Amino acid sequence: MADFKYEIVEHIGVISESAKGWTKELNKISWNGGTPKYDIREWAPEHEKMGKGVTLTEEEASKLKSLL
Amino acid sequence: MADFKYEIVEHIGVISESAKGWTKELNKISWNGGTPKYDIREWAPEHEKMGKGVTLTEEEASKLKSLL
Repeated sequence: MADFKYEIVEHIGVISESAKGWTKELNKISWNGGTPKYDIREWAPEHEKMGKGVTLTEEEASKLKSLL
Repeated sequence: MADFKYEIVEHIGVISESAKGWTKELNKISWNGGTPKYDIREWAPEHEKMGKGVTLTEEEASKLKSLL
C-alpha cells in the first residue's frame, strides 16, 4: 500500500463492536490533508490498525441516508 | 482472494457514479448463500467487477442511518 496520512477529524459514532474488540465506525477523516470525508470502516482497539472501508462525500452520505 | 459466491438479492439504489462509469451502490447481498446483508460497494459497469466495500447487518444499517 502506498504511504498516506490521515487524520480523524470527527468521531461520529460506533456502528458495532466485534467479539475481538474491533469496531465498525462512522467518522470524518481527512486523507493526505484533503477535505474531510465520511468514512465507514473497521478499526482495531485504540485505532491501532484500520480495516477495509468506504469513504463518502457529503452528497453521497446524504444519498445513502435516504436509501437506508 | 478466496473463491466465493454472491447474489445481489435487492438493488436498493445508486449512491453516486464516477467519470469512468463505476457506481457506488447500496444493495442487499447474500454471500455464499448466507442471510442477505446490506452492502455499500463500488461496481464496474454491468456489475462486471466489484471494488472495495463494507457489509452491514440489519442492526448496523439502522445504527448507521441514525448516525448519518
